[in-house]
Amino acid sequence: MDEAPPTPPVIEVVPIGFVHGGRTEVIDDQWGDVVADIVLDDRFPTDALDGLVEFSHLDVVYVFDQVDEATITVGARHPRGRTDWPRVGIFAQRAKGRPNRIGVTTCELVAVAERSVTVRGLDAVDGTPVLDLKPYMTEFAPRSPVRQPEWSSELMREYW
Amino acid sequence: MDEAPPTPPVIEVVPIGFVHGGRTEVIDDQWGDVVADIVLDDRFPTDALDGLVEFSHLDVVYVFDQVDEATITVGARHPRGRTDWPRVGIFAQRAKGRPNRIGVTTCELVAVAERSVTVRGLDAVDGTPVLDLKPYMTEFAPRSPVRQPEWSSELMREYW
Repeated sequence: MDEAPPTPPVIEVVPIGFVHGGRTEVIDDQWGDVVADIVLDDRFPTDALDGLVEFSHLDVVYVFDQVDEATITVGARHPRGRTDWPRVGIFAQRAKGRPNRIGVTTCELVAVAERSVTVRGLDAVDGTPVLDLKPYMTEFAPRSPVRQPEWSSELMREYW
Repeated sequence: MDEAPPTPPVIEVVPIGFVHGGRTEVIDDQWGDVVADIVLDDRFPTDALDGLVEFSHLDVVYVFDQVDEATITVGARHPRGRTDWPRVGIFAQRAKGRPNRIGVTTCELVAVAERSVTVRGLDAVDGTPVLDLKPYMTEFAPRSPVRQPEWSSELMREYW
């Protein structure tokens, strides 16, 4: 018998909380003014968010849980099905139908209250599971000049 | 009997690949010049990375799998144990001992070859499981002025 290929390990994650409010419908564009709360699970002590208000922005790590796992792309596709844009690999685009269905977005912090953070510009709908919150630090921005293809700037034109 | 509190759902994720090379030792600082490969699992077709080379930077989502889950902070702590810095919540710092142990770092893309991406400035050691790669787009940077506390800039001074 041939040796079976090694099976990659499964890692279990548990949402730290959920998105409350904001949009209920999955829409591609105009996320910039959407305001929503991220409400932590009550297993977290209320000091889990202490000091976050000193930051203007935070990175939100979440799961596109409404994406049917059967529709996930593992190879290449045209972003948004636009055949006038190049066919690129799933890891060369930020489409939601991706392996592990993880989204990461830098949002503006509006307010913090006990176990809740209000954010502006989170591109995730009401009910989305959140895996992590990280304060945004300028030192985590690119430290060399940024280059990106024209199609990606076109795609982003109406996003916020 | 009292009603049990709702149990948060468990979400299973599977590494898309692993970090190869770079550092083998977990060290806090001087990550900026570390060069490592991210090698995709061979269940991915080779076009999964097509077009990534058009971007100068990418976001790497990974798991701090060497962190003992028993040591994870869910409330507040002094970053790096520095009592001269404020005690802040785990979600107001980027420490690795965090719920779900997820790291997100924007790295410089050095090269792409079939199922492998070479990056500079990834703060994850050899063998780290990677959950996602996303191209960095300037449109995902903060769209309003950034503010952060002094302790965070001090902490980051020697990081890269």
